[in-house]
Amino acid sequence: MSQIQIQIKDDQGVRIISFNRPEKRNAFNLKMYQQLTEYLIQGEHDNAIRAFMLRGEGNCFTSGNDISDFLNSGELNETHPTVQFLHCILEIKKPLIAAVSGAAVGIGTTLLLHCDLVYADNSATFQLPFVNLALVPEAASSLLLPLIVGQQKAAELILLGESFTASTAKELNIINQVVEQSQLDDFVLSQAKKLAAQPPLALQASKQLLRHNQAEVKQQMLKELVLFSERLKSDEAKARFQAFLTK
Amino acid sequence: MSQIQIQIKDDQGVRIISFNRPEKRNAFNLKMYQQLTEYLIQGEHDNAIRAFMLRGEGNCFTSGNDISDFLNSGELNETHPTVQFLHCILEIKKPLIAAVSGAAVGIGTTLLLHCDLVYADNSATFQLPFVNLALVPEAASSLLLPLIVGQQKAAELILLGESFTASTAKELNIINQVVEQSQLDDFVLSQAKKLAAQPPLALQASKQLLRHNQAEVKQQMLKELVLFSERLKSDEAKARFQAFLTK
Amino acid sequence: MSQIQIQIKDDQGVRIISFNRPEKRNAFNLKMYQQLTEYLIQGEHDNAIRAFMLRGEGNCFTSGNDISDFLNSGELNETHPTVQFLHCILEIKKPLIAAVSGAAVGIGTTLLLHCDLVYADNSATFQLPFVNLALVPEAASSLLLPLIVGQQKAAELILLGESFTASTAKELNIINQVVEQSQLDDFVLSQAKKLAAQPPLALQASKQLLRHNQAEVKQQMLKELVLFSERLKSDEAKARFQAFLTK
Repeated sequence: MSQIQIQIKDDQGVRIISFNRPEKRNAFNLKMYQQLTEYLIQGEHDNAIRAFMLRGEGNCFTSGNDISDFLNSGELNETHPTVQFLHCILEIKKPLIAAVSGAAVGIGTTLLLHCDLVYADNSATFQLPFVNLALVPEAASSLLLPLIVGQQKAAELILLGESFTASTAKELNIINQVVEQSQLDDFVLSQAKKLAAQPPLALQASKQLLRHNQAEVKQQMLKELVLFSERLKSDEAKARFQAFLTK
Repeated sequence: MSQIQIQIKDDQGVRIISFNRPEKRNAFNLKMYQQLTEYLIQGEHDNAIRAFMLRGEGNCFTSGNDISDFLNSGELNETHPTVQFLHCILEIKKPLIAAVSGAAVGIGTTLLLHCDLVYADNSATFQLPFVNLALVPEAASSLLLPLIVGQQKAAELILLGESFTASTAKELNIINQVVEQSQLDDFVLSQAKKLAAQPPLALQASKQLLRHNQAEVKQQMLKELVLFSERLKSDEAKARFQAFLTK
Repeated sequence: MSQIQIQIKDDQGVRIISFNRPEKRNAFNLKMYQQLTEYLIQGEHDNAIRAFMLRGEGNCFTSGNDISDFLNSGELNETHPTVQFLHCILEIKKPLIAAVSGAAVGIGTTLLLHCDLVYADNSATFQLPFVNLALVPEAASSLLLPLIVGQQKAAELILLGESFTASTAKELNIINQVVEQSQLDDFVLSQAKKLAAQPPLALQASKQLLRHNQAEVKQQMLKELVLFSERLKSDEAKARFQAFLTK
């Protein structure tokens, strides 16, 4: 745990947050959720920070929740690090921009639905394998995804839980653009700097207007968490997790 | 009426429901609506059934309402077979998957908006000719369609009422995928079996979350029915139906 | 001001409204907003008018608000000509169809979100440069745009404020179709005449159903206007406008 699993670097108004746990394909453990939330809140209150860029080290965005860590983490209530992270990305006023290379699984895909701009390279793959694990979607993805792609495509991505490519994500408007792998970080940073150069109060007021359904999104998030917790204790889920962990 | 116009076959957790009235291009009469609803509710309560597949016989999905039958069917209240069918596909908890070959007209297109997964072959055509008949859209399509395709495309499809192809339906995310005609039934059945193999409680809870706006959808359905009934009695509609039936 | 800056011509049930102020790239001054509103309301009450077509003269749709005129126009309350125009396009019951050639900037793009059908040629460019001017989006575009294109693309178009092409607008379903420049006016007029030939009461009832979220749209419009007025008086905006006007 001495290694720094969440790294930050501030560059001309942009706080770059990197997921760095390559031996676990950047899976988020509880400590990482806490650090992420802390760095975001810190940046939110720092006038020098105008935008956040999220990225993963080692050609991987994040393989999602660290399942063994998560299974021992107690109730999914307001003080749970995962729940606090979700509320943070829902409520943050400064823009979030993601650069996705490699796998974006589970929370790796659902957190993108809370970002303002999302770019990926051709190595990126996205997956929402909640039902496959006998769980339900989280991070309000059951509301946000149908709003972007419609009920039929949302049902496909969530109920079948199969992975999909950057090109599909682009066609569905889940991401803004597919960028050449070698240029992804530079391009996304330049886009983040463009946002950082916009008038900050007008930018934040406009983001707030765009998030007109925030109360509804939060309510859906809470509704999902109740069902998620319930499913987590089910025999269905226990069997699936057992299979997953012994794979 | 001795011929079986709605056929069912259960296959590894999938109830396959076929529309079979080829001499009327599978137009739905009241009896067919009743049978459809009955077979769906029956399957909903049968633990062995995990998903429904809807298809039409004879390279036709359905040409829609049987208009002469419908015009003699009385008030569109809660006990009307069409209304009961609409409520059924709105409220059903198990996934609905459609295979569309040939024409899907009126209810043939609007029922797809309640399906979880929709596949079509290149012979498929879709049409919402309600305004053309001096009526208004039904099955909450006036709410569900703009949510998928946006106001401008929804207005085009509903106000102009022209037919559109499988390829357009795919671009608009109304359907999930276009499949080779010879493989459509097999492919859709295999997708249905994938859903049938998912953990059933997680699957149903996830579908329920995806249908977060169900109360609003039902309200819109009822609002449409009031206007639909009103329009049905209008001089505009009488003239259009007369022209249609004597064509 | 003796020149006629808003021209109308009625043709077989279609009222064609042309923006005609070529020396200012059809920028809307207050007088033009008033005339637009007047011609729309007049047509709304005229049984011979069944649809409206909006277009610009001189291969330009409109470069948006006339900023110097607008800056001297007083409070953005219910009696302001711009606000009255916005309420008019929100509440109008007969269909609005737009033909976009050349630039559609600011209100030039946001008014399209209230149209039923929108066509453009390849010379068309769209832009929402509100944040660039230290303002926030208007005409409920912060609600309507995400409903069509999803949060990620809406954030791109609004927060970065860069211009986009007809082909992008088509891919995003903001417009219905891209048409050859030489045929744009004829094609759009023929589409408008198709709508004018539909049964008028069924058409209007269907448009009303499609606009199911009208109350929410109006509320968002008012919420935007409060923030817009606030931003307009900000130091951020004064600096941006100064730069813009002395450019």
